[in-house]
Amino acid sequence: MVTVTLLGCGGTQPLPDRALSALTVSVGGATLLLDCGEGTQTALRRWGVSAYRITHILLTHYHGDHILGLPGLLQTLSSLGRTAPLTVAGPAGLDAVAAPVSALAGPLPFAVHWQEAGNTPFGAGPLTVTPVPLQHRVPCCGYALHLPRAGRFDTARAKAAGIPVSLWGRLQAGESVDGFTPDQVLGPARRGLTVVYATDTRPCPALLDAARDADLLCMDATYADDADLDKAKLYGHATCRETGALAAKAGVRRLWLTHYSAAVTDLQPGLAAAQSQYPGAVAGTDGLRLELDFDKGDNP
Amino acid sequence: MVTVTLLGCGGTQPLPDRALSALTVSVGGATLLLDCGEGTQTALRRWGVSAYRITHILLTHYHGDHILGLPGLLQTLSSLGRTAPLTVAGPAGLDAVAAPVSALAGPLPFAVHWQEAGNTPFGAGPLTVTPVPLQHRVPCCGYALHLPRAGRFDTARAKAAGIPVSLWGRLQAGESVDGFTPDQVLGPARRGLTVVYATDTRPCPALLDAARDADLLCMDATYADDADLDKAKLYGHATCRETGALAAKAGVRRLWLTHYSAAVTDLQPGLAAAQSQYPGAVAGTDGLRLELDFDKGDNP
Repeated sequence: MVTVTLLGCGGTQPLPDRALSALTVSVGGATLLLDCGEGTQTALRRWGVSAYRITHILLTHYHGDHILGLPGLLQTLSSLGRTAPLTVAGPAGLDAVAAPVSALAGPLPFAVHWQEAGNTPFGAGPLTVTPVPLQHRVPCCGYALHLPRAGRFDTARAKAAGIPVSLWGRLQAGESVDGFTPDQVLGPARRGLTVVYATDTRPCPALLDAARDADLLCMDATYADDADLDKAKLYGHATCRETGALAAKAGVRRLWLTHYSAAVTDLQPGLAAAQSQYPGAVAGTDGLRLELDFDKGDNP
Repeated sequence: MVTVTLLGCGGTQPLPDRALSALTVSVGGATLLLDCGEGTQTALRRWGVSAYRITHILLTHYHGDHILGLPGLLQTLSSLGRTAPLTVAGPAGLDAVAAPVSALAGPLPFAVHWQEAGNTPFGAGPLTVTPVPLQHRVPCCGYALHLPRAGRFDTARAKAAGIPVSLWGRLQAGESVDGFTPDQVLGPARRGLTVVYATDTRPCPALLDAARDADLLCMDATYADDADLDKAKLYGHATCRETGALAAKAGVRRLWLTHYSAAVTDLQPGLAAAQSQYPGAVAGTDGLRLELDFDKGDNP
Protein backbone atom coordinates (compact mmCIF):
# COMPACT_ATOMS: atom_id res chain seq x y z
CA MET A 1 0.00 0.00 0.00
CA VAL A 2 1.16 3.51 -0.83
CA THR A 3 0.16 6.26 1.57
CA VAL A 4 0.30 9.82 0.30
CA THR A 5 0.07 12.75 2.71
CA LEU A 6 -0.06 16.37 1.71
CA LEU A 7 1.82 18.03 4.58
CA GLY A 8 1.00 21.54 3.46
CA CYS A 9 -0.50 23.33 0.50
CA GLY A 10 0.88 26.88 0.72
CA GLY A 11 3.31 28.74 -1.47
CA THR A 12 5.93 31.39 -0.69
CA GLN A 13 5.23 31.98 3.01
CA PRO A 14 4.09 29.60 5.71
CA LEU A 15 0.81 30.71 7.29
CA PRO A 16 -0.49 29.77 10.74
CA ASP A 17 -3.09 27.48 9.20
CA ARG A 18 -1.38 26.58 5.94
CA ALA A 19 2.03 24.96 5.93
CA LEU A 20 4.30 25.18 2.93
CA SER A 21 3.71 22.70 0.12
CA ALA A 22 5.29 19.30 0.81
CA LEU A 23 4.19 15.73 0.26
CA THR A 24 5.16 12.37 1.67
CA VAL A 25 4.82 9.05 -0.09
CA SER A 26 5.18 6.05 2.19
CA VAL A 27 5.45 2.46 1.13
CA GLY A 28 6.78 -0.61 2.88
CA GLY A 29 8.00 1.23 5.95
CA ALA A 30 9.98 3.84 4.00
CA THR A 31 8.95 7.41 3.28
CA LEU A 32 9.96 9.82 0.54
CA LEU A 33 9.56 13.49 1.37
CA LEU A 34 8.99 15.86 -1.54
CA ASP A 35 10.07 19.41 -0.70
CA CYS A 36 11.00 20.64 2.74
CA GLY A 37 10.13 24.26 3.44
CA GLU A 38 10.30 25.90 6.85
CA GLY A 39 7.94 24.07 9.19
CA THR A 40 7.95 20.73 7.39
CA GLN A 41 9.20 18.90 10.47
CA THR A 42 6.25 20.32 12.40
CA ALA A 43 3.82 19.27 9.67
CA LEU A 44 5.26 15.74 9.72
CA ARG A 45 4.51 15.59 13.42
CA ARG A 46 1.08 17.17 13.05
CA TRP A 47 -0.03 14.63 10.49
CA GLY A 48 1.60 11.61 12.09
CA VAL A 49 4.21 10.88 9.44
CA SER A 50 7.39 9.49 11.00
CA ALA A 51 10.37 11.69 10.16
CA TYR A 52 12.57 8.82 11.24
CA ARG A 53 11.44 6.70 8.30
CA ILE A 54 12.32 9.22 5.63
CA THR A 55 14.85 7.65 3.28
CA HIS A 56 14.84 10.28 0.53
CA ILE A 57 14.14 13.98 0.37
CA LEU A 58 13.37 15.08 -3.19
CA LEU A 59 13.60 18.81 -3.77
CA THR A 60 11.85 20.41 -6.71
CA HIS A 61 14.01 23.56 -6.63
CA TYR A 62 15.83 25.83 -4.25
CA HIS A 63 13.48 28.66 -3.46
CA GLY A 64 13.22 29.10 0.29
CA ASP A 65 9.66 27.85 0.60
CA HIS A 66 10.87 24.45 -0.63
CA ILE A 67 14.12 23.98 1.27
CA LEU A 68 14.40 26.05 4.45
CA GLY A 69 13.09 23.26 6.66
CA LEU A 70 16.10 21.09 5.83
CA PRO A 71 18.53 22.16 8.58
CA GLY A 72 15.92 21.72 11.31
CA LEU A 73 14.73 18.38 9.99
CA LEU A 74 18.31 17.10 9.81
CA GLN A 75 18.90 18.20 13.41
CA THR A 76 15.69 16.57 14.56
CA LEU A 77 16.62 13.31 12.81
CA SER A 78 19.92 13.56 14.63
CA SER A 79 18.23 13.97 17.99
CA LEU A 80 16.00 10.99 17.14
CA GLY A 81 19.18 8.94 16.97
CA ARG A 82 19.14 8.27 13.24
CA THR A 83 22.18 6.48 11.89
CA ALA A 84 20.83 5.31 8.50
CA PRO A 85 22.03 7.38 5.55
CA LEU A 86 19.68 9.87 3.95
CA THR A 87 19.55 10.86 0.29
CA VAL A 88 18.71 14.43 -0.66
CA ALA A 89 18.11 14.86 -4.37
CA GLY A 90 17.31 17.90 -6.46
CA PRO A 91 17.97 19.61 -9.78
CA ALA A 92 21.16 21.37 -10.87
CA GLY A 93 22.57 23.67 -8.19
CA LEU A 94 22.27 21.31 -5.26
CA ASP A 95 25.84 21.94 -4.07
CA ALA A 96 25.07 25.58 -3.38
CA VAL A 97 22.32 24.46 -1.01
CA ALA A 98 24.12 21.50 0.52
CA ALA A 99 26.93 23.64 1.88
CA PRO A 100 24.95 26.19 3.93
CA VAL A 101 22.36 23.62 5.00
CA SER A 102 25.13 21.34 6.27
CA ALA A 103 26.83 24.27 7.99
CA LEU A 104 23.65 25.17 9.86
CA ALA A 105 22.69 21.59 10.67
CA GLY A 106 26.13 20.90 12.13
CA PRO A 107 27.67 17.46 12.64
CA LEU A 108 25.18 14.63 12.13
CA PRO A 109 25.37 10.98 13.21
CA PHE A 110 24.26 9.83 9.76
CA ALA A 111 25.49 10.37 6.22
CA VAL A 112 23.63 12.67 3.86
CA HIS A 113 24.06 11.82 0.20
CA TRP A 114 23.44 14.93 -1.86
CA GLN A 115 22.55 13.78 -5.34
CA GLU A 116 21.69 15.89 -8.38
CA ALA A 117 18.60 14.28 -9.85
CA GLY A 118 19.47 14.72 -13.53
CA ASN A 119 17.05 13.19 -15.99
CA THR A 120 17.59 9.51 -15.22
CA PRO A 121 15.13 7.45 -13.18
CA PHE A 122 16.55 6.06 -9.95
CA GLY A 123 15.40 3.62 -7.34
CA ALA A 124 14.18 4.58 -3.88
CA GLY A 125 13.27 1.40 -2.01
CA PRO A 126 10.45 -0.26 -3.94
CA LEU A 127 9.75 2.92 -5.92
CA THR A 128 11.22 4.17 -9.14
CA VAL A 129 11.67 7.94 -9.13
CA THR A 130 11.61 9.74 -12.47
CA PRO A 131 12.61 13.41 -12.43
CA VAL A 132 10.31 15.55 -14.58
CA PRO A 133 11.74 18.80 -15.95
CA LEU A 134 9.31 21.59 -15.09
CA GLN A 135 8.97 25.17 -16.30
CA HIS A 136 9.67 27.57 -13.48
CA ARG A 137 11.86 30.65 -13.41
CA VAL A 138 14.76 28.63 -11.99
CA PRO A 139 15.78 25.01 -12.72
CA CYS A 140 12.99 22.93 -11.27
CA CYS A 141 11.91 19.32 -11.44
CA GLY A 142 8.86 17.41 -10.43
CA TYR A 143 8.92 13.72 -9.60
CA ALA A 144 6.95 10.74 -10.85
CA LEU A 145 7.04 7.96 -8.26
CA HIS A 146 6.16 4.54 -9.56
CA LEU A 147 5.50 1.35 -7.66
CA PRO A 148 5.62 -1.57 -10.11
CA ARG A 149 3.31 -4.55 -9.81
CA ALA A 150 4.40 -8.02 -10.79
CA GLY A 151 2.30 -10.25 -13.04
CA ARG A 152 -0.22 -12.74 -11.74
CA PHE A 153 1.20 -15.95 -10.23
CA ASP A 154 0.37 -18.94 -12.39
CA THR A 155 0.00 -21.88 -10.00
CA ALA A 156 -0.56 -24.34 -12.85
CA ARG A 157 2.79 -23.43 -14.44
CA ALA A 158 4.50 -23.52 -11.05
CA LYS A 159 3.19 -27.00 -10.36
CA ALA A 160 4.03 -28.18 -13.88
CA ALA A 161 7.61 -26.95 -13.44
CA GLY A 162 7.82 -28.86 -10.15
CA ILE A 163 8.58 -25.77 -8.07
CA PRO A 164 8.11 -26.44 -4.34
CA VAL A 165 5.29 -24.38 -2.81
CA SER A 166 7.73 -23.04 -0.20
CA LEU A 167 9.50 -21.04 -2.95
CA TRP A 168 6.40 -19.54 -4.54
CA GLY A 169 6.34 -16.45 -2.30
CA ARG A 170 9.91 -15.45 -3.14
CA LEU A 171 9.36 -16.02 -6.86
CA GLN A 172 6.19 -13.95 -6.71
CA ALA A 173 8.20 -11.18 -5.08
CA GLY A 174 10.51 -11.20 -8.10
CA GLU A 175 13.38 -13.18 -6.59
CA SER A 176 15.20 -15.97 -8.42
CA VAL A 177 15.68 -18.94 -6.12
CA ASP A 178 17.13 -22.45 -6.36
CA GLY A 179 17.47 -22.18 -10.13
CA PHE A 180 13.87 -21.06 -10.65
CA THR A 181 13.11 -17.60 -12.06
CA PRO A 182 10.05 -15.38 -11.70
CA ASP A 183 9.32 -15.41 -15.43
CA GLN A 184 8.54 -19.14 -15.10
CA VAL A 185 5.55 -18.43 -12.90
CA LEU A 186 4.50 -14.81 -13.40
CA GLY A 187 2.26 -13.40 -16.09
CA PRO A 188 2.99 -10.02 -17.68
CA ALA A 189 3.63 -7.15 -15.27
CA ARG A 190 0.40 -5.44 -14.25
CA ARG A 191 -0.31 -1.77 -13.95
CA GLY A 192 1.49 -0.33 -10.92
CA LEU A 193 0.82 2.85 -8.96
CA THR A 194 2.10 6.28 -9.97
CA VAL A 195 2.12 9.49 -7.97
CA VAL A 196 3.33 12.72 -9.59
CA TYR A 197 4.31 15.82 -7.62
CA ALA A 198 4.84 18.93 -9.72
CA THR A 199 5.41 22.38 -8.30
CA ASP A 200 6.46 25.09 -9.04
CA THR A 201 5.59 25.05 -12.71
CA ARG A 202 3.72 26.23 -15.73
CA PRO A 203 1.78 23.49 -17.50
CA CYS A 204 4.35 21.91 -19.82
CA PRO A 205 4.74 18.95 -22.20
CA ALA A 206 7.14 16.98 -19.98
CA LEU A 207 4.68 17.13 -17.10
CA LEU A 208 1.79 16.17 -19.35
CA ASP A 209 3.75 13.09 -20.45
CA ALA A 210 4.79 12.12 -16.96
CA ALA A 211 1.28 12.47 -15.60
CA ARG A 212 -0.51 10.30 -18.17
CA ASP A 213 -2.85 7.90 -16.37
CA ALA A 214 -1.19 8.69 -13.03
CA ASP A 215 -3.07 7.56 -9.95
CA LEU A 216 -2.50 10.96 -8.38
CA LEU A 217 -1.19 14.25 -9.67
CA CYS A 218 -0.42 16.85 -7.01
CA MET A 219 0.24 20.05 -8.92
CA ASP A 220 0.97 23.76 -8.64
CA ALA A 221 -2.28 25.73 -8.48
CA THR A 222 -0.85 29.00 -7.25
CA TYR A 223 -3.49 31.31 -8.67
CA ALA A 224 -7.22 30.79 -8.27
CA ASP A 225 -8.26 32.99 -11.13
CA ASP A 226 -7.17 33.30 -14.74
CA ALA A 227 -7.13 37.04 -14.18
CA ASP A 228 -3.70 36.24 -12.72
CA LEU A 229 -2.56 34.36 -15.82
CA ASP A 230 0.05 37.00 -16.67
CA LYS A 231 1.48 36.72 -13.17
CA ALA A 232 1.45 32.93 -13.49
CA LYS A 233 3.47 33.17 -16.69
CA LEU A 234 5.82 35.75 -15.23
CA TYR A 235 6.56 33.81 -12.05
CA GLY A 236 6.39 30.31 -13.51
CA HIS A 237 3.21 29.03 -11.87
CA ALA A 238 -0.17 27.73 -12.99
CA THR A 239 -3.72 28.91 -12.51
CA CYS A 240 -6.20 26.42 -11.14
CA ARG A 241 -7.97 26.25 -14.50
CA GLU A 242 -4.70 25.39 -16.23
CA THR A 243 -3.96 22.71 -13.67
CA GLY A 244 -7.37 21.14 -14.19
CA ALA A 245 -6.85 21.25 -17.95
CA LEU A 246 -3.50 19.48 -17.77
CA ALA A 247 -4.94 16.82 -15.47
CA ALA A 248 -7.82 16.22 -17.87
CA LYS A 249 -5.53 16.01 -20.87
CA ALA A 250 -3.20 13.59 -19.06
CA GLY A 251 -6.12 11.45 -17.95
CA VAL A 252 -4.95 11.32 -14.35
CA ARG A 253 -7.12 9.37 -11.94
CA ARG A 254 -6.95 11.94 -9.16
CA LEU A 255 -5.87 15.57 -8.94
CA TRP A 256 -4.85 17.53 -5.87
CA LEU A 257 -4.29 21.26 -6.10
CA THR A 258 -1.43 22.69 -4.04
CA HIS A 259 0.97 25.61 -3.56
CA TYR A 260 -1.69 28.29 -3.24
CA SER A 261 -0.63 31.89 -3.21
CA ALA A 262 -0.81 33.38 0.28
CA ALA A 263 -3.39 35.78 -1.18
CA VAL A 264 -5.82 32.86 -1.70
CA THR A 265 -7.96 32.67 1.40
CA ASP A 266 -11.02 30.93 -0.05
CA LEU A 267 -10.23 27.70 -1.90
CA GLN A 268 -13.64 27.37 -3.55
CA PRO A 269 -13.23 29.67 -6.57
CA GLY A 270 -9.95 28.04 -7.56
CA LEU A 271 -11.43 24.59 -7.06
CA ALA A 272 -14.38 25.48 -9.26
CA ALA A 273 -12.00 26.71 -11.96
CA ALA A 274 -10.06 23.42 -11.81
CA GLN A 275 -13.26 21.38 -11.81
CA SER A 276 -14.47 23.20 -14.91
CA GLN A 277 -11.71 21.24 -16.67
CA TYR A 278 -11.35 18.18 -14.45
CA PRO A 279 -14.52 17.53 -12.44
CA GLY A 280 -12.83 15.31 -9.85
CA ALA A 281 -10.26 17.92 -8.80
CA VAL A 282 -9.67 18.09 -5.05
CA ALA A 283 -8.50 21.25 -3.29
CA GLY A 284 -5.40 20.21 -1.38
CA THR A 285 -5.53 20.97 2.33
CA ASP A 286 -2.94 20.36 5.01
CA GLY A 287 -3.08 16.75 6.11
CA LEU A 288 -5.02 15.46 3.10
CA ARG A 289 -4.28 11.74 2.85
CA LEU A 290 -4.82 8.98 0.32
CA GLU A 291 -4.13 5.27 0.51
CA LEU A 292 -3.55 3.52 -2.78
CA ASP A 293 -3.58 -0.24 -2.88
CA PHE A 294 -3.33 -2.76 -5.70
CA ASP A 295 -5.86 -4.90 -3.93
CA LYS A 296 -8.62 -2.42 -3.32
CA GLY A 297 -9.80 -1.84 -6.82
CA ASP A 298 -7.61 1.17 -7.34
CA ASN A 299 -5.94 -0.55 -10.25
CA PRO A 300 -8.24 -3.11 -11.74
CA MET B 1 3.99 51.38 26.33
CA VAL B 2 6.04 48.21 25.99
CA THR B 3 4.28 45.18 24.56
CA VAL B 4 5.86 41.81 25.21
CA THR B 5 4.70 38.74 23.27
CA LEU B 6 5.91 35.22 23.87
CA LEU B 7 5.82 33.76 20.35
CA GLY B 8 6.57 30.25 21.50
CA CYS B 9 7.61 28.39 24.60
CA GLY B 10 9.19 25.17 23.34
CA GLY B 11 12.75 23.94 23.40
CA THR B 12 14.72 21.79 20.94
CA GLN B 13 11.97 20.85 18.49
CA PRO B 14 8.96 22.78 17.27
CA LEU B 15 5.71 20.99 18.04
CA PRO B 16 2.38 21.44 16.24
CA ASP B 17 0.96 23.28 19.23
CA ARG B 18 4.14 24.70 20.73
CA ALA B 19 6.41 26.93 18.70
CA LEU B 20 10.06 27.34 19.59
CA SER B 21 10.92 29.83 22.31
CA ALA B 22 11.05 33.41 21.02
CA LEU B 23 9.92 36.75 22.38
CA THR B 24 9.13 40.13 20.91
CA VAL B 25 9.39 43.43 22.73
CA SER B 26 7.65 46.29 20.93
CA VAL B 27 7.87 49.94 21.85
CA GLY B 28 7.19 53.09 19.87
CA GLY B 29 6.52 51.29 16.59
CA ALA B 30 9.72 49.24 16.67
CA THR B 31 10.06 45.60 17.62
CA LEU B 32 12.98 43.60 18.95
CA LEU B 33 12.84 39.87 18.30
CA LEU B 34 14.68 37.63 20.74
CA ASP B 35 15.63 34.30 19.16
CA CYS B 36 14.39 33.05 15.83
CA GLY B 37 13.97 29.28 15.60
CA GLU B 38 12.24 27.50 12.74
CA GLY B 39 8.65 28.69 12.53
CA THR B 40 9.19 32.09 14.13
CA GLN B 41 7.81 33.92 11.09
CA THR B 42 4.66 31.84 11.35
CA ALA B 43 4.36 32.59 15.06
CA LEU B 44 4.75 36.32 14.37
CA ARG B 45 1.83 36.08 11.98
CA ARG B 46 -0.22 33.91 14.30
CA TRP B 47 0.08 36.37 17.17
CA GLY B 48 -0.26 39.52 15.13
CA VAL B 49 3.23 40.92 15.60
CA SER B 50 4.39 42.77 12.49
CA ALA B 51 7.57 41.22 11.11
CA TYR B 52 8.02 44.36 9.09
CA ARG B 53 8.63 46.43 12.23
CA ILE B 54 11.46 44.30 13.57
CA THR B 55 14.55 46.47 13.90
CA HIS B 56 16.76 44.06 15.85
CA ILE B 57 17.01 40.31 16.17
CA LEU B 58 18.88 39.32 19.32
CA LEU B 59 20.12 35.74 19.35
CA THR B 60 20.95 34.04 22.62
CA HIS B 61 23.10 31.37 21.00
CA TYR B 62 23.40 29.33 17.85
CA HIS B 63 21.65 26.05 18.52
CA GLY B 64 19.18 25.33 15.74
CA ASP B 65 16.07 25.88 17.82
CA HIS B 66 17.12 29.51 18.26
CA ILE B 67 18.28 30.47 14.78
CA LEU B 68 16.88 28.28 11.99
CA GLY B 69 13.98 30.62 11.32
CA LEU B 70 16.37 33.36 10.20
CA PRO B 71 16.67 32.59 6.46
CA GLY B 72 12.90 32.34 6.04
CA LEU B 73 12.22 35.48 8.04
CA LEU B 74 14.79 37.42 6.00
CA GLN B 75 13.18 36.22 2.77
CA THR B 76 9.73 37.14 4.01
CA LEU B 77 10.93 40.62 5.00
CA SER B 78 12.32 40.89 1.50
CA SER B 79 8.99 39.94 -0.07
CA LEU B 80 7.30 42.49 2.21
CA GLY B 81 9.44 45.10 0.49
CA ARG B 82 11.62 46.01 3.45
CA THR B 83 14.43 48.43 2.70
CA ALA B 84 15.32 49.53 6.25
CA PRO B 85 18.48 47.93 7.64
CA LEU B 86 18.18 45.17 10.19
CA THR B 87 20.57 44.40 13.04
CA VAL B 88 21.18 40.80 14.05
CA ALA B 89 23.16 40.51 17.28
CA GLY B 90 24.45 37.52 19.18
CA PRO B 91 27.35 36.18 21.21
CA ALA B 92 30.78 35.12 19.91
CA GLY B 93 30.57 32.95 16.82
CA LEU B 94 28.06 35.02 14.89
CA ASP B 95 30.11 35.00 11.67
CA ALA B 96 29.78 31.24 11.37
CA VAL B 97 26.00 31.67 11.36
CA ALA B 98 25.84 34.81 9.24
CA ALA B 99 27.51 33.15 6.27
CA PRO B 100 25.19 30.15 5.74
CA VAL B 101 22.09 32.12 6.73
CA SER B 102 22.95 34.77 4.16
CA ALA B 103 23.69 32.11 1.56
CA LEU B 104 20.29 30.50 2.06
CA ALA B 105 18.38 33.79 2.29
CA GLY B 106 19.93 35.02 -0.97
CA PRO B 107 20.13 38.63 -2.10
CA LEU B 108 18.06 40.99 0.06
CA PRO B 109 16.83 44.51 -0.65
CA PHE B 110 17.96 45.67 2.81
CA ALA B 111 21.22 45.62 4.73
CA VAL B 112 21.73 43.16 7.57
CA HIS B 113 24.20 44.30 10.20
CA TRP B 114 25.61 41.27 11.96
CA GLN B 115 26.92 42.47 15.30
CA GLU B 116 28.57 40.44 18.04
CA ALA B 117 26.87 41.52 21.22
CA GLY B 118 29.94 41.47 23.50
CA ASN B 119 29.38 42.70 27.05
CA THR B 120 28.62 46.33 26.35
CA PRO B 121 25.11 47.77 26.46
CA PHE B 122 23.88 49.19 23.18
CA GLY B 123 20.91 51.20 22.05
CA ALA B 124 18.00 49.81 20.07
CA GLY B 125 15.55 52.62 19.42
CA PRO B 126 14.31 53.85 22.80
CA LEU B 127 15.62 50.72 24.55
CA THR B 128 18.99 49.98 26.05
CA VAL B 129 20.02 46.37 25.48
CA THR B 130 22.42 44.82 27.98
CA PRO B 131 23.83 41.39 27.06
CA VAL B 132 23.85 39.03 30.04
CA PRO B 133 26.39 36.19 29.96
CA LEU B 134 24.53 32.96 30.63
CA GLN B 135 25.70 29.46 31.54
CA HIS B 136 24.88 27.06 28.73
CA ARG B 137 27.06 24.44 27.09
CA VAL B 138 27.99 26.88 24.31
CA PRO B 139 28.56 30.66 24.48
CA CYS B 140 25.15 32.09 25.28
CA CYS B 141 23.79 35.42 26.34
CA GLY B 142 20.49 36.66 27.62
CA TYR B 143 19.33 40.22 27.17
CA ALA B 144 18.08 42.86 29.59
CA LEU B 145 15.99 45.41 27.71
CA HIS B 146 15.52 48.68 29.52
CA LEU B 147 13.23 51.58 28.68
CA PRO B 148 14.36 54.60 30.70
CA ARG B 149 11.88 57.07 32.13
CA ALA B 150 12.76 60.72 32.45
CA GLY B 151 12.22 62.65 35.65
CA ARG B 152 9.06 64.59 36.39
CA PHE B 153 8.68 67.88 34.52
CA ASP B 154 8.91 70.81 36.91
CA THR B 155 6.65 73.50 35.47
CA ALA B 156 7.61 75.97 38.19
CA ARG B 157 11.30 75.73 37.25
CA ALA B 158 10.46 75.92 33.55
CA LYS B 159 8.48 79.09 34.08
CA ALA B 160 11.14 80.57 36.35
CA ALA B 161 13.78 79.94 33.68
CA GLY B 162 11.58 81.66 31.12
CA ILE B 163 11.33 78.65 28.82
CA PRO B 164 8.55 79.02 26.25
CA VAL B 165 5.78 76.46 26.71
CA SER B 166 6.24 75.42 23.07
CA LEU B 167 9.62 73.90 23.98
CA TRP B 168 8.50 71.95 27.06
CA GLY B 169 7.58 68.79 25.15
CA ARG B 170 10.98 68.45 23.53
CA LEU B 171 12.80 69.15 26.80
CA GLN B 172 10.64 66.55 28.53
CA ALA B 173 11.60 64.08 25.81
CA GLY B 174 15.25 64.64 26.73
CA GLU B 175 16.18 67.00 23.91
CA SER B 176 18.23 70.16 24.37
CA VAL B 177 16.67 73.02 22.46
CA ASP B 178 17.34 76.74 21.95
CA GLY B 179 20.03 76.72 24.65
CA PHE B 180 17.79 75.07 27.23
CA THR B 181 18.65 71.62 28.60
CA PRO B 182 16.44 68.91 30.09
CA ASP B 183 18.21 69.00 33.45
CA GLN B 184 16.82 72.52 33.94
CA VAL B 185 13.27 71.21 34.03
CA LEU B 186 13.37 67.51 34.85
CA GLY B 187 13.58 65.90 38.25
CA PRO B 188 15.69 62.80 38.83
CA ALA B 189 15.14 59.96 36.35
CA ARG B 190 12.35 57.66 37.46
CA ARG B 191 12.27 53.92 37.43
CA GLY B 192 11.97 52.65 33.85
CA LEU B 193 10.80 49.31 32.52
CA THR B 194 13.03 46.25 32.28
CA VAL B 195 12.38 42.98 30.49
CA VAL B 196 14.91 40.16 30.76
CA TYR B 197 14.99 37.18 28.40
CA ALA B 198 17.27 34.37 29.48
CA THR B 199 17.44 31.01 27.78
CA ASP B 200 19.21 28.60 27.49
CA THR B 201 20.88 28.72 30.88
CA ARG B 202 21.59 27.38 34.32
CA PRO B 203 20.70 29.81 37.09
CA CYS B 204 23.82 31.99 37.39
CA PRO B 205 25.06 35.13 39.19
CA ALA B 206 25.10 37.37 36.10
CA LEU B 207 21.48 36.58 35.40
CA LEU B 208 20.54 37.12 39.03
CA ASP B 209 22.14 40.58 38.88
CA ALA B 210 20.53 41.50 35.57
CA ALA B 211 17.09 40.40 36.71
CA ARG B 212 16.97 42.35 39.98
CA ASP B 213 13.64 44.14 40.23
CA ALA B 214 12.92 43.48 36.53
CA ASP B 215 9.37 44.03 35.41
CA LEU B 216 9.43 40.71 33.61
CA LEU B 217 11.83 37.81 33.56
CA CYS B 218 11.21 35.24 30.84
CA MET B 219 13.52 32.35 31.67
CA ASP B 220 14.56 28.84 30.74
CA ALA B 221 12.39 26.28 32.51
CA THR B 222 13.29 23.27 30.42
CA TYR B 223 12.62 20.60 33.03
CA ALA B 224 9.47 20.38 35.09
CA ASP B 225 10.89 18.21 37.82
CA ASP B 226 14.05 18.34 39.92
CA ALA B 227 14.41 14.63 39.18
CA ASP B 228 15.94 15.98 35.96
CA LEU B 229 18.42 18.24 37.76
CA ASP B 230 21.39 16.20 36.59
CA LYS B 231 20.20 16.52 33.01
CA ALA B 232 19.68 20.24 33.54
CA LYS B 233 23.28 20.60 34.74
CA LEU B 234 24.61 18.42 31.94
CA TYR B 235 22.80 20.25 29.15
CA GLY B 236 22.94 23.74 30.63
CA HIS B 237 19.28 24.30 31.46
CA ALA B 238 17.19 25.01 34.55
CA THR B 239 14.43 23.15 36.31
CA CYS B 240 11.22 25.03 36.99
CA ARG B 241 11.98 25.10 40.71
CA GLU B 242 15.38 26.66 40.05
CA THR B 243 13.83 29.25 37.79
CA GLY B 244 11.30 30.18 40.45
CA ALA B 245 14.08 30.40 43.04
CA LEU B 246 16.17 32.76 40.90
CA ALA B 247 13.13 34.96 40.23
CA ALA B 248 12.36 35.15 43.93
CA LYS B 249 15.95 35.98 44.84
CA ALA B 250 16.12 38.66 42.13
CA GLY B 251 12.83 40.16 43.26
CA VAL B 252 11.41 40.27 39.75
CA ARG B 253 7.89 41.62 39.36
CA ARG B 254 6.72 38.96 36.94
CA LEU B 255 8.09 35.59 35.84
CA TRP B 256 7.27 33.67 32.68
CA LEU B 257 8.54 30.13 32.24
CA THR B 258 9.67 29.14 28.76
CA HIS B 259 11.72 26.71 26.66
CA TYR B 260 10.01 23.56 27.90
CA SER B 261 11.44 20.22 26.98
CA ALA B 262 9.39 18.51 24.28
CA ALA B 263 8.82 15.78 26.87
CA VAL B 264 6.78 18.20 29.00
CA THR B 265 3.15 17.78 27.95
CA ASP B 266 1.44 18.99 31.12
CA LEU B 267 2.61 22.43 32.29
CA GLN B 268 1.01 22.22 35.73
CA PRO B 269 3.65 20.22 37.64
CA GLY B 270 6.44 22.52 36.47
CA LEU B 271 4.38 25.59 37.23
CA ALA B 272 3.70 24.30 40.74
CA ALA B 273 7.44 23.72 41.25
CA ALA B 274 8.19 27.29 40.15
CA GLN B 275 5.39 28.68 42.28
CA SER B 276 6.77 26.88 45.34
CA GLN B 277 9.59 29.44 45.10
CA TYR B 278 7.89 32.35 43.36
CA PRO B 279 4.13 32.26 43.85
CA GLY B 280 3.36 34.60 40.95
CA ALA B 281 5.12 32.47 38.33
CA VAL B 282 3.24 32.16 35.06
CA ALA B 283 3.58 29.18 32.74
CA GLY B 284 4.54 30.65 29.38
CA THR B 285 2.25 29.65 26.54
CA ASP B 286 2.39 30.56 22.86
CA GLY B 287 0.93 34.02 22.35
CA LEU B 288 1.14 35.11 26.00
CA ARG B 289 1.15 38.90 25.97
CA LEU B 290 1.84 41.66 28.45
CA GLU B 291 1.54 45.41 28.13
CA LEU B 292 3.72 47.43 30.44
CA ASP B 293 3.08 51.12 30.81
CA PHE B 294 4.60 53.81 33.01
CA ASP B 295 1.18 55.37 33.40
CA LYS B 296 -0.86 52.40 34.47
CA GLY B 297 0.55 51.79 37.88
CA ASP B 298 3.07 49.26 36.70
CA ASN B 299 5.87 51.39 38.03
CA PRO B 300 4.63 53.54 40.84
